[in-house]
Amino acid sequence: MKLARRMLKVQASAIREILKVTERPEVLSFAGGLPAPEAFPVEALQRAHARALETDPAGSLQYGPTEGYGPLRAWVAERMTRRGLPARAEQVLITAGSQQGIDLVGKALIDPGDLVAVEAPSYLAALQTFTTYEARFAVIPTDEEGMRVDELERVLRTRRIKLIYLVPTFQNPRGTTLTLERRAKVARLALEHGVAVLEDDPYGELRYCGAALPPIAGLERKAPVIHLGSFSKTLAPGLRLGYAIADERTIRALTIAKQAADLHTGALSQRAVAELMGFFDYDAHLDALRRLYGARLSAMLAALGDFPAGTTFTRPEGGLFVWARLPAGIDAQQLLADAMRERVAFVPGAPFFPSHPQRDTLRLNFSNRPPELIAEGMARLAVCVERRLREARAVA
Amino acid sequence: MKLARRMLKVQASAIREILKVTERPEVLSFAGGLPAPEAFPVEALQRAHARALETDPAGSLQYGPTEGYGPLRAWVAERMTRRGLPARAEQVLITAGSQQGIDLVGKALIDPGDLVAVEAPSYLAALQTFTTYEARFAVIPTDEEGMRVDELERVLRTRRIKLIYLVPTFQNPRGTTLTLERRAKVARLALEHGVAVLEDDPYGELRYCGAALPPIAGLERKAPVIHLGSFSKTLAPGLRLGYAIADERTIRALTIAKQAADLHTGALSQRAVAELMGFFDYDAHLDALRRLYGARLSAMLAALGDFPAGTTFTRPEGGLFVWARLPAGIDAQQLLADAMRERVAFVPGAPFFPSHPQRDTLRLNFSNRPPELIAEGMARLAVCVERRLREARAVA
Repeated sequence: MKLARRMLKVQASAIREILKVTERPEVLSFAGGLPAPEAFPVEALQRAHARALETDPAGSLQYGPTEGYGPLRAWVAERMTRRGLPARAEQVLITAGSQQGIDLVGKALIDPGDLVAVEAPSYLAALQTFTTYEARFAVIPTDEEGMRVDELERVLRTRRIKLIYLVPTFQNPRGTTLTLERRAKVARLALEHGVAVLEDDPYGELRYCGAALPPIAGLERKAPVIHLGSFSKTLAPGLRLGYAIADERTIRALTIAKQAADLHTGALSQRAVAELMGFFDYDAHLDALRRLYGARLSAMLAALGDFPAGTTFTRPEGGLFVWARLPAGIDAQQLLADAMRERVAFVPGAPFFPSHPQRDTLRLNFSNRPPELIAEGMARLAVCVERRLREARAVA
Repeated sequence: MKLARRMLKVQASAIREILKVTERPEVLSFAGGLPAPEAFPVEALQRAHARALETDPAGSLQYGPTEGYGPLRAWVAERMTRRGLPARAEQVLITAGSQQGIDLVGKALIDPGDLVAVEAPSYLAALQTFTTYEARFAVIPTDEEGMRVDELERVLRTRRIKLIYLVPTFQNPRGTTLTLERRAKVARLALEHGVAVLEDDPYGELRYCGAALPPIAGLERKAPVIHLGSFSKTLAPGLRLGYAIADERTIRALTIAKQAADLHTGALSQRAVAELMGFFDYDAHLDALRRLYGARLSAMLAALGDFPAGTTFTRPEGGLFVWARLPAGIDAQQLLADAMRERVAFVPGAPFFPSHPQRDTLRLNFSNRPPELIAEGMARLAVCVERRLREARAVA
């Protein structure tokens, strides 16, 4: 544990430093995973909080059940049933964001030394969370269609895997989406091998083109899949509201873990969001959000198209991130130093790899800036890349 | 881990069952640790939430720093400095209730097999949290002045203790308070042995008689004491707001643990409470709360005075709980079955013991019912005790 903790500390500090520096107001930052604050439904949330505190002040302010507020659990179950994951309210646990869902799964399932199969690259804070439970990682490569499920199958045959963790839809950090065929295969493998799957889906509702795909958790009724969702990207992250959906037995185990972690999620936030869903056109709000972010994604992809030859990048259909690979093996950490001088920032890709980092990769967030600033920031970054390329040629 | 988790599950389920049954509206329950909802400062909290959402909607709804909202950290530091724990804002981490503080200390400090010194009896959910990190317990007896610090010293000399956990003020479940002399001794022992202390203090502001005592964390500047506080008992638990205070290095370690657990505490709740402290007379509110709960404590102690001879009970000077021991070895779990038929409830004391439970003990909460209902409920319970006593005599 001590070593794991030390590694975690170094890694976490490095990222925190990057984010702290890059969030300075004068920096055009594409580093964080921040939703656009101008898209927060402020008035609706004001009204929802006021209503919750007015109609049931005691309930909004008192201790509540660890499982979550009944009407919100029911709302999530009903919506997810329509989105292809049939669920009852009893199968829903309300969490403090989907990050807490990852932590509770770690607490409830992971014993020290257990192997977790993860994508390379993978969501950094999930790697960190599993590390706090002393997990080891079985690293599964990815391609343009997400996790290489053939590799997963090979690993499942030869190693004793405790949990498969993946972000199948608009992955963090790569933005890629697992195909329907691969989803079905993951669900089948989970069932066959009796290995739990953690399907982390904070971006699923943010699709800007292409057809929606069903959650893995909805594909094989008896497969042990835990599905995590969040209101952070669709309403507001400051509410700290997410949910886990699984079979009732798993939900009971996660509930016990949550009781030990923080007793329950904020009662007022839960009631406010349940109130909001009664008067607010959530689907129209999501449509507006999709138009807003879709335009930003287009701007980002167009700008990347003007990068020096040899630059490659993913073409996500939704979510918050594009992933790029620099030409001629340029080190993204070194590029960041150049970029910061031009007041533009991103996150180097290396920390997202549980092992064997690709140092010429980077993650770009496009949700937090309007198209014109994306164009401006990416133009500055392209100049930095060109300069590095010229220097590399001069040396060669 | 698997065994620990199984034990935890059984224990947690038993308690949850008791609480579920006892919170039925027709039951006069003294089981939970609920503050009085009629004392929630509803209007002030309504205004505070409205103001936070109006003056800084983006900040109230966006992701925030893991450490917490700066002005709230500063407020906590300033208040705790006045309460005898000199601290700067950088030494404060805002948590999702003080329960999360316990969890983060477990995540950051406890390795499997580590020994945690705890009071017998101790706060149940803390025992559960440490169990999720596979801690073992060194059990320290208690008396009317709290933890037996002489026994703690003996244990520190002979066993390798990783952490000392205690609720020094108005302890849960016994309501007792550690004397100043013992506090100073705990701080000295922590310093001498280099053993961290977790001072869990959710009730410290709720003193109804006697003189305030300084936090252990304020007594030896260099002693490794982590102090946990909460707004759950003084404002409202539904906000899920608490804090940890420690040296900056420890706060950094806890911050990394929190980042992996839930990224940060609700941004809106934090801003609302910081706003509230600007216009609300918090000290007058606490005075009113003390009068309200003080009268309820008096009612509870008076009622217990009328219990059959041989009943003993603690005489707390604050907090939420009185602890009683039944005459003639009556089993509190069996008494609860009788009591439920009379529609009155409490929590049997046995689960609060990490080992060697005293089955003739029970915990009574007095904050959640007015004096007349406390009198009524305790009268019904006294009848149940008398009946058990008569039966015991008839058998003998």
